[in-house]
Amino acid sequence: MKRYERFADDIAELIRSGVLGPGQRVPSVRYASQTHGVSPSTVFQAYYLLERRGLIRARPRSGYFVNAHAPRQFSEPQAQAPVSESTDVDVSDLVFSILDSIKDPHTVPFGSAFPSPTLFPLQRLSRSLASASRAMDPRVVVTDLSPGNPQLRRQIALRYMVAGLMLPMEELLITNGALEALNLCLQAVTEPGDLVAIEAPAFYVCLQVLERLKLKAVEIPVHPREGMDLDVLAQTLEKHPIKAVWSMTTFQNPVGASMPEAKKQALVDLLHRHQVPLIEDDVYAELYYAPQAPKPAKAFDRDGLVMHCGSFSKSLAPGYRVGWVAAGRYAQKIERLKLMTSLCASMPAQAAIADYLQHGGYDRHLRKLRYALEGQQSSMLAAIARHFPAQTRVSQPSGGYFLWLELPERMDALKLFHMALAQGISIAPGPIFSPTRRFGNCIRLNYGSPWDTTGEQAMQTLGRIVSSF
Amino acid sequence: MKRYERFADDIAELIRSGVLGPGQRVPSVRYASQTHGVSPSTVFQAYYLLERRGLIRARPRSGYFVNAHAPRQFSEPQAQAPVSESTDVDVSDLVFSILDSIKDPHTVPFGSAFPSPTLFPLQRLSRSLASASRAMDPRVVVTDLSPGNPQLRRQIALRYMVAGLMLPMEELLITNGALEALNLCLQAVTEPGDLVAIEAPAFYVCLQVLERLKLKAVEIPVHPREGMDLDVLAQTLEKHPIKAVWSMTTFQNPVGASMPEAKKQALVDLLHRHQVPLIEDDVYAELYYAPQAPKPAKAFDRDGLVMHCGSFSKSLAPGYRVGWVAAGRYAQKIERLKLMTSLCASMPAQAAIADYLQHGGYDRHLRKLRYALEGQQSSMLAAIARHFPAQTRVSQPSGGYFLWLELPERMDALKLFHMALAQGISIAPGPIFSPTRRFGNCIRLNYGSPWDTTGEQAMQTLGRIVSSF
Repeated sequence: MKRYERFADDIAELIRSGVLGPGQRVPSVRYASQTHGVSPSTVFQAYYLLERRGLIRARPRSGYFVNAHAPRQFSEPQAQAPVSESTDVDVSDLVFSILDSIKDPHTVPFGSAFPSPTLFPLQRLSRSLASASRAMDPRVVVTDLSPGNPQLRRQIALRYMVAGLMLPMEELLITNGALEALNLCLQAVTEPGDLVAIEAPAFYVCLQVLERLKLKAVEIPVHPREGMDLDVLAQTLEKHPIKAVWSMTTFQNPVGASMPEAKKQALVDLLHRHQVPLIEDDVYAELYYAPQAPKPAKAFDRDGLVMHCGSFSKSLAPGYRVGWVAAGRYAQKIERLKLMTSLCASMPAQAAIADYLQHGGYDRHLRKLRYALEGQQSSMLAAIARHFPAQTRVSQPSGGYFLWLELPERMDALKLFHMALAQGISIAPGPIFSPTRRFGNCIRLNYGSPWDTTGEQAMQTLGRIVSSF
Repeated sequence: MKRYERFADDIAELIRSGVLGPGQRVPSVRYASQTHGVSPSTVFQAYYLLERRGLIRARPRSGYFVNAHAPRQFSEPQAQAPVSESTDVDVSDLVFSILDSIKDPHTVPFGSAFPSPTLFPLQRLSRSLASASRAMDPRVVVTDLSPGNPQLRRQIALRYMVAGLMLPMEELLITNGALEALNLCLQAVTEPGDLVAIEAPAFYVCLQVLERLKLKAVEIPVHPREGMDLDVLAQTLEKHPIKAVWSMTTFQNPVGASMPEAKKQALVDLLHRHQVPLIEDDVYAELYYAPQAPKPAKAFDRDGLVMHCGSFSKSLAPGYRVGWVAAGRYAQKIERLKLMTSLCASMPAQAAIADYLQHGGYDRHLRKLRYALEGQQSSMLAAIARHFPAQTRVSQPSGGYFLWLELPERMDALKLFHMALAQGISIAPGPIFSPTRRFGNCIRLNYGSPWDTTGEQAMQTLGRIVSSF
């Protein structure tokens, strides 16, 4: 990390924490250079970077100012009241019909679950693929089936270590993306008909997995900034025979909430008391905007109850289908399930990512990716401020690539979905994020694509449709 | 295919069908050249090839002779009596303890489920991987999730077409190897507790999949040459509410049986009358030794009841984890299950295989592979003739890379497994191929590795242990 990047992070932190408020002037280059003991050119480079990150902008002849759409301009969406009943899950038809309808590559992909593939170093990865597969010992295709490529597992363990987590290699199993990992985790600890506590709203894929495994859901409300409501979860654990808790503790999809570390610790403690396993879906872990990586709940796991699922699909190599799980006490069971389900993840893909992690400059790429996403969030927030009704509530996550919008109550997100689609714009309507089809006036917007006039115009159109309700 | 290869196939067919018996002299070069209207050098090349294929050998100054271990020297294993009860499946612990114990790369891999990776064009594939991934449109990682890479699906459909099967592209779904395809098929047509008709003996992975999905098995005896007993199957279908039939119709693992085409047709007709789906596991389809590819049961499917599962793992690209299913009327259901389970198969791996199929010389590779396997079978049969007790019964499959041995009744295959392992030799003991732990005096031997003195010595050691019982 370069000096100007560190300095930019310091300023960004002041903006995030509200010390520097929207519209406020950022210290002048000369002043900053003197007080922080850095060269003026370092300050310039830092301010230029912050401008690209969408946090400040220059006004001719008057210096740099914090962007008007910086934190706290929008009201937060509201956490919904808990539903105390458990429910069968049956969302797939709705979800699939919506996913099918947004496949057209000419549709503006605000409804997509993926960031734009142009943000990833696919050509560099392709070189890793070529050299790693050329160097691959043919025998590994028979011997390294499970738990996966040892070099890759070592690299992943190293990244955990740098983040302050000492994981024994034996816990780590490579999977076909995080999705397979999550499926296997849930299957390892449940039988059909069992109850699982999930988030409300929850990523629809979580609902689909529950549906596939014939599990019942108990919805726990998610606070838009701090994640799952632990009081409600505690009551639920008292009342129901919950077999597992599934949570995206960091940059929750769709809301964007991240549990503070103390809350993650409290979650782990609570589940420890009940001896209920936590399935931690942490696929956005690397997409944080703050200077420090948020710790996962897994960091507080003492007795192997936390199954931590990660992936390279959202941060490096979409389409390679390489994810993993650090499965604690369930590692062997999950490894066996994996062998019976799909044997192993594609070996050249595993070898390529191992090679890239060693030689490709992953951290440099991640830094660039985070800046890009942060800037795109800023642009989308600005567009919402310009084009959406004033009562619109918006989450402002400190990572990932989703905004969660709570629109005026009269809105019907499914109707909005169809009206927007007719204009060539996809959105993700709230009801696909709940087995009880709540969040009828909410939508999730994806800002994972580089911002351009198409995006800006689409937001204008969307705002017009919303206002027409 | 070259002229001498065709001529060699003609002679091979005469040997297989018994027209040319073991020890018999093959027509002289001059005679063959005159009667068949080919040049003497073509005959020479053909005989040389047949020698490499293990079918004939030269005796100095007297010409070429059919090998003594050619067909019909061994008695066939016997088909076992049917068990009419359905049974829970609980083999995984046994299977895993056996698989774990044979992981050591220094063990002679007669117990392995894989052919030697040295038989595959991995370097050529690696080039396909490099060029295909370099050329990959980044957007496909978002758009081509399912049903899979369109070029690859087209190539697979083309191969079906050449084999005389017109499959609509919509039926074809790419999976993480055939194993995932089989899992999805079974899941698409069953609920936990349902009954599935399987082969006895059955590939242990089939048993594991049933176990994972909590299905009950009804075992249908397999004739060592002609496959599943259709009379028993017909009675079973009358008596039990069978939800699916799982069969390896060609080169069945472990026995090596292949249903004749008429029998495949009869199987499809029978299931059509009962409207019970067939899950056809056809992963060895390309490994035939005869001049013509055997047709799958899928070729006789009229109403989409047959789910035909294939893979490149055994014929081209082990470790790439690319398989497929032509799923008939279940195609959409399976595609959705796939999306919920693991999204898609690794995209660079799919693109690489598509590229190889188009430019890599797949048919040339397959021809070489078939000759190699046929020659290795011949060497192993010869070793059995030399080192095993005379009462040993052996299957002589016309494809694949497994022999199924029925040893004298007093043998205990599990004991034999441990004694052989102590000598550094793995075998696959009969009981892992049956949920009722039958086949206690049977073993499966893998001849998928190039034959060498290590193999020969291992067979001698194995023969000595068997004789010591």
